[in-house]
Amino acid sequence: MRQIIAGGYAPAFYSHASRYGAPMRCLVVLAHPVTHSLSHAIAETAVDAIERNGHDYRLIDLYQSGFDPRLTVSEREGYYRKFDQSMLASEIGDLQWAEALVLIFPTWWFGPPAILKGWFDRVWAPGIAYDHAGDLGAIKPRLGGLRKVVAITTLGSPWWVDYFVLRRPVRNVLKHAILRCCAPHARLTFISLYKAERIDARTASDWMARVKKAISGL
Amino acid sequence: MRQIIAGGYAPAFYSHASRYGAPMRCLVVLAHPVTHSLSHAIAETAVDAIERNGHDYRLIDLYQSGFDPRLTVSEREGYYRKFDQSMLASEIGDLQWAEALVLIFPTWWFGPPAILKGWFDRVWAPGIAYDHAGDLGAIKPRLGGLRKVVAITTLGSPWWVDYFVLRRPVRNVLKHAILRCCAPHARLTFISLYKAERIDARTASDWMARVKKAISGL
Repeated sequence: MRQIIAGGYAPAFYSHASRYGAPMRCLVVLAHPVTHSLSHAIAETAVDAIERNGHDYRLIDLYQSGFDPRLTVSEREGYYRKFDQSMLASEIGDLQWAEALVLIFPTWWFGPPAILKGWFDRVWAPGIAYDHAGDLGAIKPRLGGLRKVVAITTLGSPWWVDYFVLRRPVRNVLKHAILRCCAPHARLTFISLYKAERIDARTASDWMARVKKAISGL
Repeated sequence: MRQIIAGGYAPAFYSHASRYGAPMRCLVVLAHPVTHSLSHAIAETAVDAIERNGHDYRLIDLYQSGFDPRLTVSEREGYYRKFDQSMLASEIGDLQWAEALVLIFPTWWFGPPAILKGWFDRVWAPGIAYDHAGDLGAIKPRLGGLRKVVAITTLGSPWWVDYFVLRRPVRNVLKHAILRCCAPHARLTFISLYKAERIDARTASDWMARVKKAISGL
């Protein structure tokens, strides 16, 4: 089913893709308002690694593209009949195109920024990411072609609050609610970068190495 | 510190407020795009109960008011210096006014709708809902006057998925991240209405009774 896209291959002698897997179609989704943010630096590193590994990619910078995260009246009213896709053609096309998804975002209040939450609310919708079961039972996945997901998020909190107090809500919802229902074949790599409010150069360098490694594992 | 507002009292012989507590300033926040939704019906029931119980209230219908949930560049850039409140005067005033908060929303993908997530992202901000500690350690609450929170949410999923698979992420984040940090004196009543996609009249009636009871407990 994979479509080979011109320019998607890199020569085997330097492409990690040849070692870890074939070239993939990667959708990178970035959700941070500030272009000199850590999230943007991570996205730059990730895109560079994607290119070096010989993958094809598309980047959605949700803020730069002016994405509106509010599910509309029309979209909600059609949710159980026919979902209104008319405002979302580009985002839907990108999601359905992707074999790998790379999410890059800060965690705010132990959730994704509203603009990214709304990307799930609106684009991971019936007829696109899944289908309702006839009896309103368990929903049926539609993103069977999505095989890998890398989520990279920065948090102000220390790791133990996320693990022991909150129980990793962002990871758990992504893994056990969204991916399980829509993309059951997708393997998730979830990278949490804690205490990100003030980091030194060495930590930043370590984090970028983790980002590159995760991309190399696609 | 409580300000008694004209009209906020109801005669003691029919006011539950006289039995359960003094009149309070209640902020109702509603987050659903469709005006004939279950969430809107719940909001109507809640507001009616608030009035009957002799409380004062303000209602923010996030969709109707056109609230934009995207934290802006300016707001993010000032987050660790001086948060830019210029676009949020009304929402900030309402939050600081409230002694009780009633949140009414559907749960989508085991999170609040983007429009409500963004209300937290933008309005529960430094200098408003909390203060940063000087050393970027634990943040300091600013909403000491918020004493009760009632969250009422509808979910498509059955209860056991929320409890055993996801571990109640919406409740846990609200209770252990947001309220603990910003409003440590607030007592939370969290009402989850499961399998809300298709309900019969009796279930709807039971649910409205639960809403009224929760409001009477303010």
